[in-house]
Amino acid sequence: MSQAFKVTFQPDGKSVSVLDGTTVFEAAARAGIILTSPCGGKATCGKCRVEITAHAPAPTEADQKLLPAEDLARGARLACQCRIHANMVVNVPHETRFFEQKILEEGVGRQVKLHPNIKKRFVKLPTPTLTDQRSDLDRVMAALREEIPDVRADIEVIRTLPDKLREDGFAITAVLEGNDIISFERGNTTDRNHGVAFDIGTTTVVGMLVDLTTGAQLAVASRTNPQVAYGDDVVSRITYCHDHKTGLELLQSKIAHCLDSIIAEVCTKAKVARETIYEVTVVGNTTMNHIFLKVNPWNIAQAPYVAVLRGAVETKSSRLGITINETGNVYALPNIAGFVGADTVGVILATDLLRSDAIKLAIDIGTNGELALGNKNRLVSCSCAAGPAFEGARIQFGMRATAGAIEKVLLDHDVRINVIGNVPPRGLCGTAVIDAVAEMLRVGIVDPAGRVQSPENLAGKLPEALLGRIVPGKTGCDFVLAKAEETKSGQPILLTQRDVRELQLAKGAIFAGIQVLKNVLGVTDNDIAEVLLAGAFGNFIRRSMAKRIGLLPDIPTERIKFVGNAAGAGARMALIARECREEAERISTQTEYIELGGRPDFQQEFMMAMMFPEK
Amino acid sequence: MSQAFKVTFQPDGKSVSVLDGTTVFEAAARAGIILTSPCGGKATCGKCRVEITAHAPAPTEADQKLLPAEDLARGARLACQCRIHANMVVNVPHETRFFEQKILEEGVGRQVKLHPNIKKRFVKLPTPTLTDQRSDLDRVMAALREEIPDVRADIEVIRTLPDKLREDGFAITAVLEGNDIISFERGNTTDRNHGVAFDIGTTTVVGMLVDLTTGAQLAVASRTNPQVAYGDDVVSRITYCHDHKTGLELLQSKIAHCLDSIIAEVCTKAKVARETIYEVTVVGNTTMNHIFLKVNPWNIAQAPYVAVLRGAVETKSSRLGITINETGNVYALPNIAGFVGADTVGVILATDLLRSDAIKLAIDIGTNGELALGNKNRLVSCSCAAGPAFEGARIQFGMRATAGAIEKVLLDHDVRINVIGNVPPRGLCGTAVIDAVAEMLRVGIVDPAGRVQSPENLAGKLPEALLGRIVPGKTGCDFVLAKAEETKSGQPILLTQRDVRELQLAKGAIFAGIQVLKNVLGVTDNDIAEVLLAGAFGNFIRRSMAKRIGLLPDIPTERIKFVGNAAGAGARMALIARECREEAERISTQTEYIELGGRPDFQQEFMMAMMFPEK
Repeated sequence: MSQAFKVTFQPDGKSVSVLDGTTVFEAAARAGIILTSPCGGKATCGKCRVEITAHAPAPTEADQKLLPAEDLARGARLACQCRIHANMVVNVPHETRFFEQKILEEGVGRQVKLHPNIKKRFVKLPTPTLTDQRSDLDRVMAALREEIPDVRADIEVIRTLPDKLREDGFAITAVLEGNDIISFERGNTTDRNHGVAFDIGTTTVVGMLVDLTTGAQLAVASRTNPQVAYGDDVVSRITYCHDHKTGLELLQSKIAHCLDSIIAEVCTKAKVARETIYEVTVVGNTTMNHIFLKVNPWNIAQAPYVAVLRGAVETKSSRLGITINETGNVYALPNIAGFVGADTVGVILATDLLRSDAIKLAIDIGTNGELALGNKNRLVSCSCAAGPAFEGARIQFGMRATAGAIEKVLLDHDVRINVIGNVPPRGLCGTAVIDAVAEMLRVGIVDPAGRVQSPENLAGKLPEALLGRIVPGKTGCDFVLAKAEETKSGQPILLTQRDVRELQLAKGAIFAGIQVLKNVLGVTDNDIAEVLLAGAFGNFIRRSMAKRIGLLPDIPTERIKFVGNAAGAGARMALIARECREEAERISTQTEYIELGGRPDFQQEFMMAMMFPEK
Repeated sequence: MSQAFKVTFQPDGKSVSVLDGTTVFEAAARAGIILTSPCGGKATCGKCRVEITAHAPAPTEADQKLLPAEDLARGARLACQCRIHANMVVNVPHETRFFEQKILEEGVGRQVKLHPNIKKRFVKLPTPTLTDQRSDLDRVMAALREEIPDVRADIEVIRTLPDKLREDGFAITAVLEGNDIISFERGNTTDRNHGVAFDIGTTTVVGMLVDLTTGAQLAVASRTNPQVAYGDDVVSRITYCHDHKTGLELLQSKIAHCLDSIIAEVCTKAKVARETIYEVTVVGNTTMNHIFLKVNPWNIAQAPYVAVLRGAVETKSSRLGITINETGNVYALPNIAGFVGADTVGVILATDLLRSDAIKLAIDIGTNGELALGNKNRLVSCSCAAGPAFEGARIQFGMRATAGAIEKVLLDHDVRINVIGNVPPRGLCGTAVIDAVAEMLRVGIVDPAGRVQSPENLAGKLPEALLGRIVPGKTGCDFVLAKAEETKSGQPILLTQRDVRELQLAKGAIFAGIQVLKNVLGVTDNDIAEVLLAGAFGNFIRRSMAKRIGLLPDIPTERIKFVGNAAGAGARMALIARECREEAERISTQTEYIELGGRPDFQQEFMMAMMFPEK
């Protein structure tokens, strides 16, 4: 096992262990903190600045050029240049964070103005008299109408008005969703207004608690999607719903409970009362979206793969079993097609793809891979059945990226690995599969056709230590990443010939998807200004490794950027700003969906894409 | 007992018994059939034409002048001129009916265009293919959007779409409420679309089933408001709600069940399936409105008498316990103030008061009396606490206008009475109270101060038969309307001195209200072009009698018109035409409410109005 260092990020309080020489930028991504990096790591923009508060290495040349001397003295460094050779504590300022900066900053760079769908207004009203006999509701409406001319209230809300109005001498807070009063609250409660943005992944669900009076994110929590017990991927979930009489109701209640549990956690973390949460926004792929809304997803899985609904849905949270304020709302962002869902709309929204002059490619790799390529003139999207290999599934020793997972692999005279949690390894996660194959390709253990060479073929061409790790396997040769004596189980951890084939299929599907989208738009790699890697997995990919195995197009590494949980950021933007909902609708209707199954060029591209690039 | 004749109206099949010499116009009103009469009974307009199909009297001069000879031969007569001297069968054509004509006729006179809130559209859609993968909802929306650009659907409706769409090969009917799809139905169901308009009176509830594809009224049914068991008037109902923990819920469920029961009856009568009823519209006074909507009415009864809500309410019928199509709606018309409710809005809507150039006075006498005076420039309204005397309550032998009630009284050499149902009398209803006092005033038995004279004072001035009917009572003299041997009980039926006082209070309240409204507008009786008598009681009043007791202003009888259940007609218009809802809102906000309790001139007017007019 190689030496690893612990890096703690503040004020988040998150720690990761990384191999010697890893950049702070990569370590931050590993911790789920995406730093802004307009120059793509070329050390020219100076935007990825952090402060190393313990064990700062000496400033680099770029640090000295771009950062003031007094800041350098306090530990300021460029994250993309700063390499880790010791345990460290790193402070990440607000303005260095990718989405915080995008969502919250005032001034020129501000792109999302705080304009939540839920707002509160406190009004002090004149008391009724014989010469002012307006109804209770008219009295309230008159005070609100100046700002909100079309204000309305539902009968269930109206019923609560007379008592609440008189409890505090005709002073009352109206909670508004758009033009609708959804609740009246005694006295002035305008400082208590929260929402939660959710990204419902097939495997992982993330919730972000947001203060709607400031736009600030107060807490985050995540859970494994409890639906995994009923199937790993969307098709098996759809099948479950179809094969069981109350399958849809069951899976819906599972995800609703999951959201409720996340809400409980973020409320506890941020010391926020649950009834001050008035709205939940949700992104997810089209199947997750349909199941969450209790809409039958069956036809998504049947040719010609049509969804029941594409557009956004707004409804009462209570109707979906979500426990927030009893009058609260759910807003589910719109989908694009049966296999390109609201999560992709969220990515496009958060990355401004449909407002961009330059052509960009967004890649969101989860259990499925969704792609969007283009700019404001034309944006095309598709879904690639990459399978769950990148999440560690269908890999012999594969596991999710949790403690004990090998997450990084380097080859030199022998194997160097980094293990999440700095514990004895138990298996390997998706990034390690990519790293291992990329390195094995580089040194020649795997050939471009994906065949693991026998040690006999490589004799004399490789260090003995590496040669000794190539062992006979079921379908050819396998490669020992961790020896029996290093692992938790006492059994070696292998990357098998079959694992390499799985990776070829997975990366081939995505690469072929990219090729088809390029064909549709008539563009080449040179026309692509940026590749944006979204999703949890996207955070962790090492760009050079991904290029080496041919998962990503061969464009300069600095043009490949991490955008983190962009889908979730999109949900958060929709929570914070109503305009973002209109933009989401525009994205939903204007992004073209390309059905790869309907393209004659797809099979050809796929066959070619399964090969690894020649060195 | 005097001679009475039976008159049957067709195609309604309703019969009434009337005194010799009664006009067909009055008899029709008695049967609840209000005839159009622009000239007010002066035999100049010819609009109140009916056909006497059995025992037609000889044509009058006016008949011969206004009606073609061949029609006269078939029994055509002017209802205002045709006096009844035999049993008769009368056919009332469509165009002679007051509201039918207003609501349904095409052409110049057409005022309400068929434009229901609920409409159905049948669409046949292309089947999805790999090159047309639009979602189910988008596919439906695209077909509807041409006509309804902002069409929307709620998630609960969307859930039903995929199955229904595939049951009949992508041919489906969308049920729309405004821009909202409220239901999908398999196949083409566009010919089945009904609604029910309700007038919820304090005492009586009337429901009218309407075919929304034609606007035709298919059936009517009525019930006693079951809330009468919890109090006769609005204040006692409000008190009940306040004094009992679940009083409001109880009274709400009572009225909901009542509506359900009426719906069942009209459905049976018209052979219409309950689930083809998609909307219910409701008028009622503000208290009935609040209780029906389960809104606490308490503050209506407390100074300064404010309602919780004035505006219209739209909600799902299921939320109010009304059993129509499960996705159906309720639209409750707006109120004006705490004591001038949606029923008055209905009257103003149906009589076009707020669009009139001429100044008109509408009087709706129920358990309360509501007045509206003015024209399109300014319309003022008030509520008069007339009490239930006109409904027969608080009158010693008072009863509702049902079988056995004396409904008409004439004095000549003796008393002539007409009894509803042509049976021995059991009591007297409101019109008989008015008639009796008016006639007693005319012949001098009652003086203008309301004192019943003793027989000694009148000796020689009256026929002996009448003198003999004046008998000593508890608080002065009483008058025998029916002798012991004539009545069902074998006891005489009296009009007492106390009854006369009750009538003075009741009519004084209404007349004083009229005076105050005239003061507010600065107009005199001469400025009032028409007096419109609405409500069930209004139908039956004899105008000359009402003038004689000083219930109505002293304006020419032909300018006093019956408009029948105008409140219910307003509810029906709101069911048939969305534009009428906008007009109702305009009426609700633009009609000024005058609080009589806040007017210094009211007490003075009331004191004066309690006196009867000098002859």
